[in-house]
Amino acid sequence: MSDPLYDVVIIGSGPAGLSAAIYATRAELNVLVVEKEVMSGGQILNTYEVDNYPGLPGISGYDLGAKFKEHCDKLGVVSMEDEVTKLESKEQNKLVYLASGKTISTKTIIIATGARNRMLGVPGEEELSGMGVSYCATCDGAFFKNKVVAVIGGGDVAVEDAIFLARICKKVYVIHRREEFRAAKTLSTCLSNLDNVEVLWNQKVTSIEGEDMVRAILLQDTKTKEESQIPVDGVFIAVGTLPNSAIVSGIVELDPSGYIVADETCKTSVRGIFAAGDVRTKQLRQVVTAAADGANAISSIEDYIIQNK
Amino acid sequence: MSDPLYDVVIIGSGPAGLSAAIYATRAELNVLVVEKEVMSGGQILNTYEVDNYPGLPGISGYDLGAKFKEHCDKLGVVSMEDEVTKLESKEQNKLVYLASGKTISTKTIIIATGARNRMLGVPGEEELSGMGVSYCATCDGAFFKNKVVAVIGGGDVAVEDAIFLARICKKVYVIHRREEFRAAKTLSTCLSNLDNVEVLWNQKVTSIEGEDMVRAILLQDTKTKEESQIPVDGVFIAVGTLPNSAIVSGIVELDPSGYIVADETCKTSVRGIFAAGDVRTKQLRQVVTAAADGANAISSIEDYIIQNK
Repeated sequence: MSDPLYDVVIIGSGPAGLSAAIYATRAELNVLVVEKEVMSGGQILNTYEVDNYPGLPGISGYDLGAKFKEHCDKLGVVSMEDEVTKLESKEQNKLVYLASGKTISTKTIIIATGARNRMLGVPGEEELSGMGVSYCATCDGAFFKNKVVAVIGGGDVAVEDAIFLARICKKVYVIHRREEFRAAKTLSTCLSNLDNVEVLWNQKVTSIEGEDMVRAILLQDTKTKEESQIPVDGVFIAVGTLPNSAIVSGIVELDPSGYIVADETCKTSVRGIFAAGDVRTKQLRQVVTAAADGANAISSIEDYIIQNK
Repeated sequence: MSDPLYDVVIIGSGPAGLSAAIYATRAELNVLVVEKEVMSGGQILNTYEVDNYPGLPGISGYDLGAKFKEHCDKLGVVSMEDEVTKLESKEQNKLVYLASGKTISTKTIIIATGARNRMLGVPGEEELSGMGVSYCATCDGAFFKNKVVAVIGGGDVAVEDAIFLARICKKVYVIHRREEFRAAKTLSTCLSNLDNVEVLWNQKVTSIEGEDMVRAILLQDTKTKEESQIPVDGVFIAVGTLPNSAIVSGIVELDPSGYIVADETCKTSVRGIFAAGDVRTKQLRQVVTAAADGANAISSIEDYIIQNK
């Protein structure tokens, strides 16, 4: 028996990949999910609480990942734990090379490998992640109502996060290593008009303090080297995200930050390769927008398969 | 006390509207949901089972609607039962006129009024809706594995649905009133190559038969007037959908079918007016893609409010 030709191989099993698997399986497409981690779920697995996936309020990230996985299991989705080492786009079909030595043939591929947060790399950051340390104001801001928080960063996202948090929190510090923002002028102007926001220039975070919850941050002045401590309930780290797009680098078009260029149809610059979830260019990276991508990618793939019969 | 100026008024409380309400409330925006029906949930309220909203497999449409509503209630979303009669876009703010006589001022509006299926208008159609009669192959096709179904229609959607269902079902009839399809040539060609599809030309459906479940359809030949009966387990009606966009007709740009022209950012041709869910131009109308729109619309609105401070 020769190896099967899949209709679609999905790389990654976060919300985008699992949603695509649900849609593909219900459409009776021959689908395989390849995930390099032991657990499915992607970034949400490490999220303490997700309160904005409509219909499942206040669920832990771990449980939400499990619910997506159970949904797939119920439908009989086939997954494989392996790592993709190389992709090749042939005339008609694609080849997916795996770390185990296997090679898989497929008509289409969905890249659903997600993104990861750039970390500050300071003591306390990893230990207090989900316990006051967050990388997503949209996701977690509401948990800090009337509290004191610090936003770390100076780009568009950092300033947007600070504006967003200023509506929710009692006080928002913005900690930036330089003496001016890289963020757009309109954003900086908007921020400067907010009474409960204080920008601390030329400061870098040296440590995040706390036992079970964030209690304070330690700062060092980048010019005078003077140290200080600020009591805060939460720390929003907004120093960038890194798409996991290395596997398609040189194959499909990436934007300057490394995200795969694709609109909501999830079509990339290469026919038959689709990008879903946080790894593609989009304005809002959330569980629900990733899940929608999974559905859209399969819809696009059904069209693609018809056109290439 | 003067009337409040809302940050955002959401018109409609299906998945798109309620998801937008969740995101707006968590962002501490001053938000009001206006719904003309007694119940929130939109079209899914009348859906027997939804099996493709990731994380909540095999849930009734009614329960899924209730879960979205509970999520909103938990966050304290404010809703009003009223019908919007007119919208006005002023220099800065928008005015929303209600059937009750009230007028509401708001910085932004989200149109989340959905779409409805064009019905055949034959006996049995309404009674057997959800009991074998479906308007969405993507949603319900998987429930008809190895069964016999009929697709009614001759446009792109009807032929796509038939191709989709041919992978799942034992046999697919396509019933079309004319002697050729309006659908794209590639689609028709693809369909004609499928062994388990039979197209019945020049036939109109006169009745759908069955007690608790669809059992057969009655057809009449549009030329000879001859009548016939075909036993089927399911009927997929694909004769078009109608967006509920009358309220913004003449205000924002609509496509030829009446859908509000907007991409995944949900921005319409009028600044400050956004469209989310089935009412906007998009490739796939599903609960999860509507819910994603709600999140994206609020993200766009946060930017808009900053830019217009």
